[in-house]
Amino acid sequence: MTRGEGRMACSNSEIVKTAHALADAARSAILPLFRVDGIAVENKADPYNVYDPVTAADKAAEKAMRAVLEARRPDDGILGEEFGTKPGKSGLTWVLDPIDGTRAFVAGAPTWGVLIAVSDDSGPVYGLIDQPYIAERFEGGFGRAVMTGPQGERSLRTRGNRPLAEATVFTTFPEVGTQAEGDAFRAVSGQARLTRYGLDCYAYALVAGGHVDLVIEAGLKAYDIQAPIAVIEAAGGIVTDWSGGPAHEGGRVVAAAGQQQHAAALDILSRFV
Amino acid sequence: MTRGEGRMACSNSEIVKTAHALADAARSAILPLFRVDGIAVENKADPYNVYDPVTAADKAAEKAMRAVLEARRPDDGILGEEFGTKPGKSGLTWVLDPIDGTRAFVAGAPTWGVLIAVSDDSGPVYGLIDQPYIAERFEGGFGRAVMTGPQGERSLRTRGNRPLAEATVFTTFPEVGTQAEGDAFRAVSGQARLTRYGLDCYAYALVAGGHVDLVIEAGLKAYDIQAPIAVIEAAGGIVTDWSGGPAHEGGRVVAAAGQQQHAAALDILSRFV
Repeated sequence: MTRGEGRMACSNSEIVKTAHALADAARSAILPLFRVDGIAVENKADPYNVYDPVTAADKAAEKAMRAVLEARRPDDGILGEEFGTKPGKSGLTWVLDPIDGTRAFVAGAPTWGVLIAVSDDSGPVYGLIDQPYIAERFEGGFGRAVMTGPQGERSLRTRGNRPLAEATVFTTFPEVGTQAEGDAFRAVSGQARLTRYGLDCYAYALVAGGHVDLVIEAGLKAYDIQAPIAVIEAAGGIVTDWSGGPAHEGGRVVAAAGQQQHAAALDILSRFV
Repeated sequence: MTRGEGRMACSNSEIVKTAHALADAARSAILPLFRVDGIAVENKADPYNVYDPVTAADKAAEKAMRAVLEARRPDDGILGEEFGTKPGKSGLTWVLDPIDGTRAFVAGAPTWGVLIAVSDDSGPVYGLIDQPYIAERFEGGFGRAVMTGPQGERSLRTRGNRPLAEATVFTTFPEVGTQAEGDAFRAVSGQARLTRYGLDCYAYALVAGGHVDLVIEAGLKAYDIQAPIAVIEAAGGIVTDWSGGPAHEGGRVVAAAGQQQHAAALDILSRFV
């Protein structure tokens, strides 16, 4: 049985509709503030991020999403990046990152995203990655794995197995992580065909879409990774920590398009754990 | 007198229309091949790029643009990334990079662009940066500095002077450049507030749009930088080589939103030249 099947079968459709309503609300809150001068930028303390601005857009989007949940799903819990945890009674928790990639956001780059996941005790059962400026939405769970964007709708499917030597690898290093974690990343990327930097959550969407083989990161929070886990797993990929264990609490994460890339990356990364 | 004024005043409108026709032709050639599996990828030898794939989309787009020029501007010269130089008789040369950022392209990331510039002996007089998937177009020259995109049209204006300590810096390092060039980059970025990686030509568009303070790169070709020069200069910015000289032949380039960021970067970079 796939995670989440059974208990939620009768309400899956309502959960999916709610997730889309959240993403729509976040888009409306964020887009008027994207590429607008003078947005309030604060500086959050974080051991992995020298500069992690939290914009007015972050807060407006999470408030808008919480208002939708209050109306539609009052018994569910919430774990949000900006406003913390609200306990629930249903056994389900909405895990929200209103803007993943705030550094991209404040620099005007369209590679940030809104991350929305629904989790039970075992981890995320459904997730959605939304890029409002491009109007792209990637979702996975309950048997769905689909994206909509400027070119319409299409199914999501990871590219499957391929050797590390032919792999495309993404990361947010050297921007995040410790020196040792960066060394571990480079030990993998040095054997890959192509390494690219800096796309934040968008790189996970590209794994689900079949364009990227591996994303390797460190220092993640639960709200950074739960939506990507749901989307990538629904598309046929694998997301674990660097030891092959569950990744939904965050930390050091490897997302792979196939077993072959995943095993090759773990073989190297596990030496650095 | 601004570069290009006078001689071309009566034909500026035709040049702008032709540039847009080229960009439209490139979009039509490229988009059906973006995020499609199995595009032919070759490996070009290049001292700065370990892996620089040239896709069928690159070639199709440059061919389409050359066909438009043959019909509309047969007396102009052409310098294209894929099919080389065609001498002209008009004193004007179209400088074309059909896909700047082919590594982003093959990875499915929407941060590549079509670069189109028109140059005379002094350098580019008009330029256009197009991102077909997002449907964004940035242009500058002949008194124009404007972008169109998902949110409509707006003027381009760099953010102006600000201290390096408050600057946002973009680069394609560590993917390009020599070790010494990378050291030079890090000497600048280490003093900046925020450093981001990997956006290729899109980072130059963000300078013109007022979102980014500095782009620092090395190993560029003329066709990589002429369109960005035209767009950024039209928006009030500055683009030179690392010694403060002309950058339109490529090489080591610094693009700045204002004199203050430019001077601060040159002060550091010039020690490494």
